[in-house]
Amino acid sequence: MSSPAQLAILAPGLLGGSVARAARANGAAGRIVIWARRPETRLQLRDQPWCDAVAETPEAAAQGSDLVVIAAPVDQIVPLARRIAPALPAGACVTDVGSVKGEIARHGAAALGARAHFVGAHPMAGSEKTGWEHGTAELFRHRTCFVTPLPETLPAATATVAAFWHALGAEVVTVGADAHDEIVAHISHLPQAIATSLCVFLAGKDPAWRNFAGGGLRDTTRIAGSDAQIWRSIFEQNRDEVLRALGQFEEELHRFRTALANRDYVEIAARIERGKAYRDAFRPPPA
Amino acid sequence: MSSPAQLAILAPGLLGGSVARAARANGAAGRIVIWARRPETRLQLRDQPWCDAVAETPEAAAQGSDLVVIAAPVDQIVPLARRIAPALPAGACVTDVGSVKGEIARHGAAALGARAHFVGAHPMAGSEKTGWEHGTAELFRHRTCFVTPLPETLPAATATVAAFWHALGAEVVTVGADAHDEIVAHISHLPQAIATSLCVFLAGKDPAWRNFAGGGLRDTTRIAGSDAQIWRSIFEQNRDEVLRALGQFEEELHRFRTALANRDYVEIAARIERGKAYRDAFRPPPA
Repeated sequence: MSSPAQLAILAPGLLGGSVARAARANGAAGRIVIWARRPETRLQLRDQPWCDAVAETPEAAAQGSDLVVIAAPVDQIVPLARRIAPALPAGACVTDVGSVKGEIARHGAAALGARAHFVGAHPMAGSEKTGWEHGTAELFRHRTCFVTPLPETLPAATATVAAFWHALGAEVVTVGADAHDEIVAHISHLPQAIATSLCVFLAGKDPAWRNFAGGGLRDTTRIAGSDAQIWRSIFEQNRDEVLRALGQFEEELHRFRTALANRDYVEIAARIERGKAYRDAFRPPPA
Repeated sequence: MSSPAQLAILAPGLLGGSVARAARANGAAGRIVIWARRPETRLQLRDQPWCDAVAETPEAAAQGSDLVVIAAPVDQIVPLARRIAPALPAGACVTDVGSVKGEIARHGAAALGARAHFVGAHPMAGSEKTGWEHGTAELFRHRTCFVTPLPETLPAATATVAAFWHALGAEVVTVGADAHDEIVAHISHLPQAIATSLCVFLAGKDPAWRNFAGGGLRDTTRIAGSDAQIWRSIFEQNRDEVLRALGQFEEELHRFRTALANRDYVEIAARIERGKAYRDAFRPPPA
């Protein structure tokens, strides 16, 4: 798999800024062209060593690029794919960084038509910080990156996109777009809904209590500090899978409460043991 | 408030081992006498610079001690208080490190009678590591330590115990034993029940999914790795308050699910914003 001679990155935030840095640091792309929506961002990008050219429009960035990374929020990925479609070289690959994949993969592929290949991706990397200026070349290292083809996606295009993310340091997991959405509904969107709901619940109690908390509450609620508009879009796009996971989790939590109500402490201990066995088998965090 | 001339620590684990080290480091006690249940632990304690004497029995440790810290798990605190009661000097204070306080405070005070004063405490400090050998002199620094008198507790005894925990570096919060149990049901026991239930739920899905998780799931579930028997006792002792908090949290989570089912994304975003505002106001973690 040869690396792209020209890589375009559209709408860089933390992830897009990290793609550019990691591509440069790992020699994963030749020329790097970036388009950002805001003129002042385009001005600042000119001075970055990992940016070879700044494009004034998404179409201009796409021209001559054999790989395009659309780093925009989930609700802007398909509109950008539609915009760049006529400008792409024949056979180009387009990928993204969106947290939901089913709809984006289908509409992205439809937007590109037969001319180019949409292969969605979702790097499981992030930070409380946002903005391209906080990106790092190391952000994807030892992190899972889902690459999510549709049944009709050309295998060679999937391989090209997977090789690119692998070259950035990510551990690529190739899985169908809908299977991806089921997985992240459980391991990412459900925890977000829980952390948010826990904070909303505690906000209705005495807010001073949070100052007494140990590391447990701090960790359990950390992701509740995430951006509301980004998460609103994620919940919107993955509504059905999240609803299913939430409903099943509610039943699980209710079983815990029932055991406690019944003073069934053997069952309570068995549940804690089972949860602990699951948690203890997490692989160590990336260094 | 003068510091105790002789401090006894019974059944040291991570917390008791840290009390001894912190008391020595901060000059918060004169002589430090320790009793541990296991003979081999008693042998090892002899070699520690923060242990002046090892007692063969809890009663022997209590003799001549003006302050006793019972560092045992919640179900063993009252039995130990009963055992040492006859050996305590008149006017001695007894405190503990248990995560639940109402029952322990009442039974502890009853066990000591008029001879000595039971003033419960609960330092919000810990670690995944357990065992006295992992204790540190810094464990309580900038951490909340609840000191939980009953209405009938002698104010001077409460002041003595509060001053001791303050001398170890903790930020002392004095609050009634039952109010304490309501607070920790919300900020500690509820998050534990949630983290455990989330892990139990995910354990019933494809366990390989956990390897794809980013830092979000890792943080949200960290406390699910806690010891099952310790937590079984905590849920047993704080059953009523945890049931109430769990029931109300279930309603909160259900409201989130209902908004999602209704495609009410304005409500979803408002909930995320509200949770974020609560979470963003957490004070910074202790250095």
